[in-house]
Amino acid sequence: MTRIAIATAAAALAAASAGIAFAQQGPKPEDEIRYRQSVMNVIGRAVGPMGAMAQGKASFNAAVVQKNSALVDSLIGLPFNSFGPGTDKGAPTKADPKVWTESEKFKQAAEGAQKAVANLAAAAKGGEEAKFKAAFGEVGKACKSCHDDFRTKEFRN
Amino acid sequence: MTRIAIATAAAALAAASAGIAFAQQGPKPEDEIRYRQSVMNVIGRAVGPMGAMAQGKASFNAAVVQKNSALVDSLIGLPFNSFGPGTDKGAPTKADPKVWTESEKFKQAAEGAQKAVANLAAAAKGGEEAKFKAAFGEVGKACKSCHDDFRTKEFRN
Repeated sequence: MTRIAIATAAAALAAASAGIAFAQQGPKPEDEIRYRQSVMNVIGRAVGPMGAMAQGKASFNAAVVQKNSALVDSLIGLPFNSFGPGTDKGAPTKADPKVWTESEKFKQAAEGAQKAVANLAAAAKGGEEAKFKAAFGEVGKACKSCHDDFRTKEFRN
Repeated sequence: MTRIAIATAAAALAAASAGIAFAQQGPKPEDEIRYRQSVMNVIGRAVGPMGAMAQGKASFNAAVVQKNSALVDSLIGLPFNSFGPGTDKGAPTKADPKVWTESEKFKQAAEGAQKAVANLAAAAKGGEEAKFKAAFGEVGKACKSCHDDFRTKEFRN
């Protein structure tokens, strides 16, 4: 065997080991899919009332904004750890295959969302409606952009 | 119509109105079921590593305990608002019918869980393993007690 062939074989072995380790020890793909959907569902419920306030459909409530934005801030980082290899299928999902084929772009979008949410949570502490609306607008843009690019309209299996 | 008949009719009308208001404005039963399951799923993922530490299967990690207990503390109150009238069915659920027939007992169990989790989050800030284990033990008891009494083994529709 050449040196390159040995290195390639070693890399393949390492990858296989990692795969086995993932399959044996890590959460199953269906659990990862369910987990990231769960987090998104909880986030959505917390974002709803803030969206209504931002659109003027509900009165601004500083306490609700502070509580909900803090909750979203503590949740927003969680789903992005659950898009690992092999979690593109195993249960109905709206995750676009681009999550895995354009992973760098997805990572940047995820980081953008986390940054926008952190800014919202910080702005919410001040209790000023105008600053909330500005920060919430950025969160909305980040959510929409990532969903447009990486979420399919219908569930796929 | 007698006075009682009028009062009964008025009560029925009020109940019907409330029902319509619920159906039109509130979340649908299936959304409530999905929401409370989502929250419980996210809580479970955060509790897991703490359980392993409490059982000595993983090394105590003060930072993880602090982060995860704070997350659970911010989530534990949420599902209990989603067991309203009519949410005993509409999607597969493990919620025992006793949630609605023994609602006072359920409320007490829910409050007990919230108190135990608040104590855990407070204890976690100190970073002491012994205090974490004691507080986590109480959380485990509260979870188990409520699940034993109010969660069925299999999903029902």
